[in-house]
Amino acid sequence: MSLLIVGTVAFDALETPFGKTDKILGGAATYIGLSASHFVEKSHLVSVVGGDFPQEHMDLLASKGVDLKGLQIKKDEKTFFWSGKYHLDMNSRDTVDTQLNVLATFDPIVPKEFQHCQYLMLGNLVPAVQNRVLEQLLKRPKLIVLDTMNFWMDNAMPDLLEALKGVDVLTINDEEARQLSGELNLVKAAQKILTMGPKTLIIKKGEHGALLFGDNGQIFFAPALPLAEVFDPTGAGDTFAGGFIGYLTKTDDISFDNMKRALLYAATMASFCVEKFGTERLETLTTAEVQARRAEFTQLVQVQ
Amino acid sequence: MSLLIVGTVAFDALETPFGKTDKILGGAATYIGLSASHFVEKSHLVSVVGGDFPQEHMDLLASKGVDLKGLQIKKDEKTFFWSGKYHLDMNSRDTVDTQLNVLATFDPIVPKEFQHCQYLMLGNLVPAVQNRVLEQLLKRPKLIVLDTMNFWMDNAMPDLLEALKGVDVLTINDEEARQLSGELNLVKAAQKILTMGPKTLIIKKGEHGALLFGDNGQIFFAPALPLAEVFDPTGAGDTFAGGFIGYLTKTDDISFDNMKRALLYAATMASFCVEKFGTERLETLTTAEVQARRAEFTQLVQVQ
Repeated sequence: MSLLIVGTVAFDALETPFGKTDKILGGAATYIGLSASHFVEKSHLVSVVGGDFPQEHMDLLASKGVDLKGLQIKKDEKTFFWSGKYHLDMNSRDTVDTQLNVLATFDPIVPKEFQHCQYLMLGNLVPAVQNRVLEQLLKRPKLIVLDTMNFWMDNAMPDLLEALKGVDVLTINDEEARQLSGELNLVKAAQKILTMGPKTLIIKKGEHGALLFGDNGQIFFAPALPLAEVFDPTGAGDTFAGGFIGYLTKTDDISFDNMKRALLYAATMASFCVEKFGTERLETLTTAEVQARRAEFTQLVQVQ
Repeated sequence: MSLLIVGTVAFDALETPFGKTDKILGGAATYIGLSASHFVEKSHLVSVVGGDFPQEHMDLLASKGVDLKGLQIKKDEKTFFWSGKYHLDMNSRDTVDTQLNVLATFDPIVPKEFQHCQYLMLGNLVPAVQNRVLEQLLKRPKLIVLDTMNFWMDNAMPDLLEALKGVDVLTINDEEARQLSGELNLVKAAQKILTMGPKTLIIKKGEHGALLFGDNGQIFFAPALPLAEVFDPTGAGDTFAGGFIGYLTKTDDISFDNMKRALLYAATMASFCVEKFGTERLETLTTAEVQARRAEFTQLVQVQ
């Protein structure tokens, strides 16, 4: 099955209680692509970078099967840059700096050969750009997953609501679910959001796991693995999404039962992401390690 | 198997975003006893109330198999009273009023016939009182579970540390685990606490479920059931403890594998407690309802 990934490819500068980095490889589509590579041999990327984006980062993505034909390179401009600092509990962070650069004028162009993709992951991005991608598809994909964040709820709600009408699965965190629905209780929030377009909702709760809601009242829960060392949560949500869409693309089964399995792989992938700074852990991760950790999730909740 | 429950029997006055109550039946031992009654036909209570404690409350406990021989009634004094107000998110609360009354001078007396009990639940109480109970036991019980709270860590840490040396299982919440251990990370906190006496640690995370840690590095997680209506969290932790010790007493198996099952029953019982004010839901709860909801927990995390 063919997987199209749309999202940012970026530079991040990170500070956590355990250290800080200079500009390193980041961006939602980067994490999604690295994560999905454990499930699909090839994925297709639609994104944009500047002339300052190094060849080695592109080589890394290509080595993981991420096809870069849809990656626009604006030679005279600079790559999107985000800098953040995490608080001591790692559950909250402050944005130190955001330089939109190439993102400010990004017009996504889906290459012809990707316009019939069967699985589409719309990573966190300006909702208007997500809508522009949806308009270009020749045939509706079998499954469209959209990730977004509170920033777009604050600043581009009409576009976001428009995008939601066209997607199958929405992934957001608990605070965003409350904001989008106006409901404090997550079960009620889910009920309301499932009337906005998506038939399936994933509410990510970070270290507290993730909930999967279906539109027939189904609920499934994937825990987060209790880790002794959490180094850097950056990209965990994108890595989670990459595991989810990657597993569904590989298995080509979009039943609720299979989405449960996908959610556990999503949680598995996210548990690796946080172990080192940025994409570091994902770069060396083997599929054998993924399988072993997936088994730990079963152990964590299973009784005989 | 015989179960001894030590803890407060009290009056509570509660206010949540959904309403408020006058003085109603409360107290850790009350919730523990009501909860355990779904697993054991009889339990034995050691506690104290004043002359103002109504017969109907005692009748309720007796009707649930709670033997009141160890309940001291101080005719000329007043029952322990606590009043609290929950914040909008129900995860935090303010204490409005605490009147220790009979608790101020409580000297627990374990009746002779309870001194050989096999399962002992030390509900949240002054650590010195918990220690006084331990001193009176003729034979060490098969399993001792202790519940406590941050208040005693702030005000009676030496007594609490003494009590911990003599118990098998400690139940506390995530913030208390951080406070007791001085570690932010819960896995590290658990490792440290497991050197203080208990061989097993339960960290309760409220709506985010509960973690069970064994002293061989075992970890198990019980989710909380996502509920559309949470009315009043008062007593949920005690109800949780009552389900845990009740199931272990009934099955008389203190292996880590059986504690996993007990944890799921603990979570099941807590999920009922929060559905109505105070003990209201527990008073009418049937064991058939308990079994049906326990099955929901399996559905929530199980993949085929």
